[in-house]
Amino acid sequence: MSVLIVGSTALDSIKTPTAENPRLLGGSASHAAVAASFFSPVKLVGVVGDDFPKKYIQLYGRHGINLDGLQVKPGKTFHWSGEYEVNMNNRRTLLTELGVFETFSPDLPKAYQSSQFVLLANIAPALQHHVLDQMRRPKFVVADTMDLWLNIALADLIKLLKRIDGFVLNDSEAHQLTKEDNMFAALKKIHKMGPKYVIIKKGSHGSILSGPKGFFLCPAYPLHTVVDPTGAGDSFVGGMMGYLATARGTVDANIRKAMIHGSVVASFCCEGFGLNRTTKITRQRVAQRVKELEKLTRF
Amino acid sequence: MSVLIVGSTALDSIKTPTAENPRLLGGSASHAAVAASFFSPVKLVGVVGDDFPKKYIQLYGRHGINLDGLQVKPGKTFHWSGEYEVNMNNRRTLLTELGVFETFSPDLPKAYQSSQFVLLANIAPALQHHVLDQMRRPKFVVADTMDLWLNIALADLIKLLKRIDGFVLNDSEAHQLTKEDNMFAALKKIHKMGPKYVIIKKGSHGSILSGPKGFFLCPAYPLHTVVDPTGAGDSFVGGMMGYLATARGTVDANIRKAMIHGSVVASFCCEGFGLNRTTKITRQRVAQRVKELEKLTRF
Repeated sequence: MSVLIVGSTALDSIKTPTAENPRLLGGSASHAAVAASFFSPVKLVGVVGDDFPKKYIQLYGRHGINLDGLQVKPGKTFHWSGEYEVNMNNRRTLLTELGVFETFSPDLPKAYQSSQFVLLANIAPALQHHVLDQMRRPKFVVADTMDLWLNIALADLIKLLKRIDGFVLNDSEAHQLTKEDNMFAALKKIHKMGPKYVIIKKGSHGSILSGPKGFFLCPAYPLHTVVDPTGAGDSFVGGMMGYLATARGTVDANIRKAMIHGSVVASFCCEGFGLNRTTKITRQRVAQRVKELEKLTRF
Repeated sequence: MSVLIVGSTALDSIKTPTAENPRLLGGSASHAAVAASFFSPVKLVGVVGDDFPKKYIQLYGRHGINLDGLQVKPGKTFHWSGEYEVNMNNRRTLLTELGVFETFSPDLPKAYQSSQFVLLANIAPALQHHVLDQMRRPKFVVADTMDLWLNIALADLIKLLKRIDGFVLNDSEAHQLTKEDNMFAALKKIHKMGPKYVIIKKGSHGSILSGPKGFFLCPAYPLHTVVDPTGAGDSFVGGMMGYLATARGTVDANIRKAMIHGSVVASFCCEGFGLNRTTKITRQRVAQRVKELEKLTRF
């Protein structure tokens, strides 16, 4: 089964202490779509300007990503520029040029509207609502978010939580949303807001799932070198949804393995700038790291 | 087989945002010894003053801890006082009164000198050396440390690393010792300094072992409430050594399970002030949480 992914498609200019990379392919939907593509067919909804490099269209193509939902509008592609500090844990935004993204309306091609697995990657909650308004009874909807929406669109986000099956956020966002320091207390409050599955991401410390079958501590694959963590969270949730969309059996039966696969794709993402490393791996390389993670955590 | 534990025996006065607890039983050796006692007989080496409460001697006794190596000297017991911030991650020392600990010389009773499993819990590296000078060919020696010794006794500590099998330190200490941000790079440098087994503790994020059989990502048991994390690291390494001392087979075959058991005892430690919670558990409760950790991490 395919997975529908809606989010931002952008050009990222990324500075780290050792390098500078202008106009890489980025955005939540790009990272999630490439990650998902290792496991299932992907339908992408996003918007780019007429400056969007052809090579990036070709890159989506090489991953078999369906682009019927990718709008090309006159104007500039969303451009984000950021800088990482030495330890790669803190980043600051240098520049945000919304371009055509400013008026983005994620309208779904007819063939997309009956998708069963839907990932609302990080975009404004109002746009995530707009996607759901067009859907016909999807089986499993997961939304990602970011601190910006907690700050400026909290009411929309809280309404969204009642419409989705799974919600993914990082630990500082969970704290911001619930005012709880303890993760269990935060998870409990978020479940009350709607979603049956809540996943809190903790970067290099992995993630935790709270769902109908209890909790799952998902490890992060430990890395020797982190080149650029941009998009790791999107890769994680994209890989997870791609895995879920094709795995046989129930979501409950598969979600742990799905998170592990997402976690592994995210680890590759961090090893190169933008999508440079992710686009060079294979399903086999992912399976290999999943096996390594099994060995690293078995006791 | 029993485990020999040498370290500090102290009275801890601990303040948290919600409570204040004066003169609890504390010190690296006390926490480690009680933790180890769930798995194996323990021989304790430490020093207390003549003000040391009888109830704490009785507490050691209830855990079957051999006290032939506990020196009682005229004067005051080592007294440490500290305060935790709201999120329990940062603490500051309010007061340190060394008392009889200032002139502590860990002299081993004859019967202790042939111990096979030795834990040099956190004390000055010079004292850790003094213990090893008295030992007859121990099988497995592990040392713990703290940032203080990296600051004021680095040369002694570096010499010690050549004399031990395993070294335990937390992530910020690993960074301080090696100047490496990346954990793998830090581990590699520490191995070169001597120890075959290196364990980096990451608090609520668990720990990582690097040893002859590769790496092991050891999870922390996730807690609903953290009352007082003092002694959690000592409990971890104490529980690990207690488990190793009685497990059949090689250290390599048992060290992962040993770390898991240590991690579980440390989780109980955090749920009460000082040793209040740890002294109330049983081996069965530990086994139960180990099973829960298996369920929480299986994929």
